[in-house]
Amino acid sequence: MTAAKANTPMFSRIALIGIGLIGSSISHACRRANLAREIVGSSATAATRQKALDLGLISEAFDNAADAVAGADLVILCAPVGAYAAIAAAIGPHLTPGAIVTDVGSVKAAVVRDVGPHIPAGVHFIPGHPIAGTEQSGPEAGFAELYDNRWCILTPAADADPAATAKLKLFWERLGSQVEIMDAVHHDLVLAITSHVPHLIAFNIVNTAAHLERVTDSEVIKFSAGGFRDFTRIAASDPVMWRDVFLNNKDAVLEMLGRFSEDLTVLQRAIRFGDGDVLQRMFTDARSIRRSIIQAGQDTAAPDFGRSRPADPPSPAKR
Amino acid sequence: MTAAKANTPMFSRIALIGIGLIGSSISHACRRANLAREIVGSSATAATRQKALDLGLISEAFDNAADAVAGADLVILCAPVGAYAAIAAAIGPHLTPGAIVTDVGSVKAAVVRDVGPHIPAGVHFIPGHPIAGTEQSGPEAGFAELYDNRWCILTPAADADPAATAKLKLFWERLGSQVEIMDAVHHDLVLAITSHVPHLIAFNIVNTAAHLERVTDSEVIKFSAGGFRDFTRIAASDPVMWRDVFLNNKDAVLEMLGRFSEDLTVLQRAIRFGDGDVLQRMFTDARSIRRSIIQAGQDTAAPDFGRSRPADPPSPAKR
Repeated sequence: MTAAKANTPMFSRIALIGIGLIGSSISHACRRANLAREIVGSSATAATRQKALDLGLISEAFDNAADAVAGADLVILCAPVGAYAAIAAAIGPHLTPGAIVTDVGSVKAAVVRDVGPHIPAGVHFIPGHPIAGTEQSGPEAGFAELYDNRWCILTPAADADPAATAKLKLFWERLGSQVEIMDAVHHDLVLAITSHVPHLIAFNIVNTAAHLERVTDSEVIKFSAGGFRDFTRIAASDPVMWRDVFLNNKDAVLEMLGRFSEDLTVLQRAIRFGDGDVLQRMFTDARSIRRSIIQAGQDTAAPDFGRSRPADPPSPAKR
Repeated sequence: MTAAKANTPMFSRIALIGIGLIGSSISHACRRANLAREIVGSSATAATRQKALDLGLISEAFDNAADAVAGADLVILCAPVGAYAAIAAAIGPHLTPGAIVTDVGSVKAAVVRDVGPHIPAGVHFIPGHPIAGTEQSGPEAGFAELYDNRWCILTPAADADPAATAKLKLFWERLGSQVEIMDAVHHDLVLAITSHVPHLIAFNIVNTAAHLERVTDSEVIKFSAGGFRDFTRIAASDPVMWRDVFLNNKDAVLEMLGRFSEDLTVLQRAIRFGDGDVLQRMFTDARSIRRSIIQAGQDTAAPDFGRSRPADPPSPAKR
């Protein structure tokens, strides 16, 4: 009996609302760990639905979220957060009593605000955010290992059902992640500095470089290996998703951006007045956090993220 | 005779002044392509000299640059640019007539200013800058493929000997690079936006994150996969080298930093007033430069620089 129980999937029917990089990776990882008897999904885009079916990510595709959630015991919102309010209003009346509703959005207080009021009594709403991704988008971008060894943050309300939170925590652990429970407002502050402001300054420097009069785009591209190319990877992330992040985490982003600009002014002044001691001290301090991130398993220790490895890509032919 | 000539190394004796990531990679790549009959080097640090000998990077190690350049037909300065003036003064009297002196510094106008006056008549001074590197330092960090398919910029003076420039260009091509000839002042402007300002804002955000009261260092580290970790790689680069870059490219860096801050203010205002159209347009524009960089062979097309690949690193055991 114990063995039989261990082979029973955690959820009977998982509904993915939106099937991009994050949703498709959840599907891959669910199947790797046998977490769902069936996975269905919805997308407003016909091509996405067809692609998701072709890739075997979902067994049924719906063009609207309300139909997709019928009978689901786990509903995961995987759309840009700006679409959540409308999705929540649409699915609310169709949710199954006892179901868990969660999401993967990069902001959490706005999700509580937009989704919470539409969740009926008897359904468990537990916002979530896996800290994982790549710069690619769409159902074909997903892979089973995306969440391995990454953190997933859950932000249950104070009165959330502990059993539902525990079940969702176990689900993410079986997807490969470690789970942290956190207040939604604190999540938004933490992510403002670890994700949102880094993306904003990456988007920004790419735009600055593209609009110079004295340096051509061709030069920027050719000599990007000096550091700039790292920023372009982040700046290639989904524009709509990121627009919605900034529109929905305004206060925390503006606070962290204020700190960033203040600190940058100190460096700018040190450059202007040739204060090498200030520069060297700040640059030396910055090294230690890198070591901690590698020790914590959150990045590779390989130089240049491993992309310089001799075998990958192959050395070009000599000219 | 032709075949025999093809097997003759380009240079009889190459002197590397400084043997860190860049110098050691030159040694590896020289041996791969048989470009030097012998390679010698100098370092003020005994441990570096011993390491360079142990690794076979050089056949003779000197504790001062003046001794190292004797008899060399190619001298490459591979030290932080702040040390160049003293090195040039020391080696000037010991250079061999007809020799080429070059360097690998990330700034060029200051190098012309600091080194040029010490180069005697009959010696060819041609500043250079390979646009390649990793965040690691020291003689053990080098590898033969570092320069493959990267660009190397040479900034010969208007009256430089064309034959010497052509020979140095061929040398870098045989190290694996493509070569661009450019004016020193223009180089400094191009690199300010493609390398110097990106490094400065990476150093800066890492320091901002380290000095917050409401977000702990532990949280920054755990949730760094949201984007922040990319910046820590760049910010792990050598502090002394980067101090010298900013002290020696002040005007161009301040100009580009001014543009960056101006553009960031536009984004900040769009966030404050909830102007999603401005955000989405700027984020969409930023995607196209990434595509161009990949098409130009200056970065990998693999998602997340390839570091998310299933096979590398291995998936951790399930918890």
